[in-house]
Amino acid sequence: MNYVLGIDGGGSKTVCVLMDETRQVISRGKAGASNYQSIGVDAARQSIEFAIMAATDQAVNITKPIKITAICLGLAGIGRAEDIEVVKGLVQQLQNSELLPIKWALSASDIVICHDALIAMVGGIGNHVGIVAAAGTGSIVFGRNHQGVTKRVGGWGYILGDEGSAYKIAIAGVQAVLKAYDGTGMPTSLVDIFKAYLELSNLEALVELIYRRGWGVTEIAALAEIVDLAAALGDKVANQIIDDAVQYFVKATSTVIEQIFSDRPTLELVTTGSVWQGKSKMHEKYTASLVQQFPDVKVIFPKHEPAYGAGLLALQKLS
Amino acid sequence: MNYVLGIDGGGSKTVCVLMDETRQVISRGKAGASNYQSIGVDAARQSIEFAIMAATDQAVNITKPIKITAICLGLAGIGRAEDIEVVKGLVQQLQNSELLPIKWALSASDIVICHDALIAMVGGIGNHVGIVAAAGTGSIVFGRNHQGVTKRVGGWGYILGDEGSAYKIAIAGVQAVLKAYDGTGMPTSLVDIFKAYLELSNLEALVELIYRRGWGVTEIAALAEIVDLAAALGDKVANQIIDDAVQYFVKATSTVIEQIFSDRPTLELVTTGSVWQGKSKMHEKYTASLVQQFPDVKVIFPKHEPAYGAGLLALQKLS
Repeated sequence: MNYVLGIDGGGSKTVCVLMDETRQVISRGKAGASNYQSIGVDAARQSIEFAIMAATDQAVNITKPIKITAICLGLAGIGRAEDIEVVKGLVQQLQNSELLPIKWALSASDIVICHDALIAMVGGIGNHVGIVAAAGTGSIVFGRNHQGVTKRVGGWGYILGDEGSAYKIAIAGVQAVLKAYDGTGMPTSLVDIFKAYLELSNLEALVELIYRRGWGVTEIAALAEIVDLAAALGDKVANQIIDDAVQYFVKATSTVIEQIFSDRPTLELVTTGSVWQGKSKMHEKYTASLVQQFPDVKVIFPKHEPAYGAGLLALQKLS
Repeated sequence: MNYVLGIDGGGSKTVCVLMDETRQVISRGKAGASNYQSIGVDAARQSIEFAIMAATDQAVNITKPIKITAICLGLAGIGRAEDIEVVKGLVQQLQNSELLPIKWALSASDIVICHDALIAMVGGIGNHVGIVAAAGTGSIVFGRNHQGVTKRVGGWGYILGDEGSAYKIAIAGVQAVLKAYDGTGMPTSLVDIFKAYLELSNLEALVELIYRRGWGVTEIAALAEIVDLAAALGDKVANQIIDDAVQYFVKATSTVIEQIFSDRPTLELVTTGSVWQGKSKMHEKYTASLVQQFPDVKVIFPKHEPAYGAGLLALQKLS
């Protein structure tokens, strides 16, 4: 039996699945962050090694020896040719690890390295063709067609892009609060909801939280929940923010469809990320708007996790 | 003769003017940054001390002894009551400095501490009443009426506010480039202008510059110049960015006018910051739009620097 490793490496955790050639997940392991551009190559390699170890330690008790014939790593922030070389080097180093209870001698062509949107799409749909609309802390719309042609829109990060993401929804919510305070924006219940949720006595404290307490993108993105709640409760300003996010995703998705699915096949589109789980009907609005424009698109929630998608991409190397 | 010190403390430099009671500037000194929230109280105190020393060392050769009877410090990021207390303590410490060739024994009421928008307004207009529309790295519109009532709009910093600032114009320019690349935005000459100006081979390199080379707000804000240039050359997308900035400032300014100048007096408004110096007619567009709405408002460029405004505010303590 042939086995592969599928790895999902992100800014908060790394997941590894050990998969056999029948697409069966034998075992699964987790470890810390592995976005090497932020934490460095050594720390990333360690997290990936731990995740593989956690997955394979369980498995060797059931079936041994495990011979790994391919690996796919889907990593946040991977794109440039240099990145791919760095990660290939990292995998070569891991093959000499004495911690891992597996046998592998992979050639470069057995190592698949891609960005996290691709594995989220393949895992979410369970297929190599389709579209993912990811709206977590960041955002991206990414598709791959039957010919293997890919197209991405967005994914430019929190400074330059990420429209429709939890981060941008949160920022828009805080901005609406400040504009209401300044008198340049409409009154909104977001003012009281933010104050109550964050236990603030005044709005200066909100600004202090964000600038002086070293709040990062993740902490700010968590505030999207407040905007979502206010929208669900009927606040007009909050609903406008959600509608803007929906409109962005519809525009981004239609750009991907026009460009690589112009023959309009029946098509699955998976939505991933916390933003789609809200109470403000963002998912319903997005789906309704998209399906009206493209009746053959089926919008789904993920069938499997991204690491599973990485496993499927590794399996492709066997055929 | 009574003398006062006027101090303008910011994120890149500190300026001190020594002024006599006839509003005459006797001398002027400069030192490094003094925004204590970023660099710490000790470093800020040192910069302020150096700036005072640079100003007073020259002056003691002309006229001595110099007895300082009031001081005004206008500092970036000052707002909360805690900030004011910190800076008052800092001034008390400076009075014990053996480096400074001046005599002073100021009581708390002779120490004026305010934010940088107020001294920019007072210096820019040469008067305690009026409005400042500041558009440098950040942005704020701030006014004070004859009754001493103040109103500010914006000034919420680069994450939450600063619409119309160099930083936000730069970000909007880069976003327009990325949207053109993604296919979700209009084609724009900004793509080629950015590439040429930054000597980039491709757009990934632009993203790398901003995220991976540790570019801060100041470095990004400098790119506003490119957007301004493209707008001046007739690019539609760049002109839309400039027009959005103009519209923001008109809205912010009219909010200040409605709120504290509702009796519609003849009124001077000073524009400060690099953004107003561009080639894209942003200043002309803003002035035209504002004067149409409020014919009694006179839009001017600064008559004096902010430290001069701090001097005038200190002089008020003498009367």
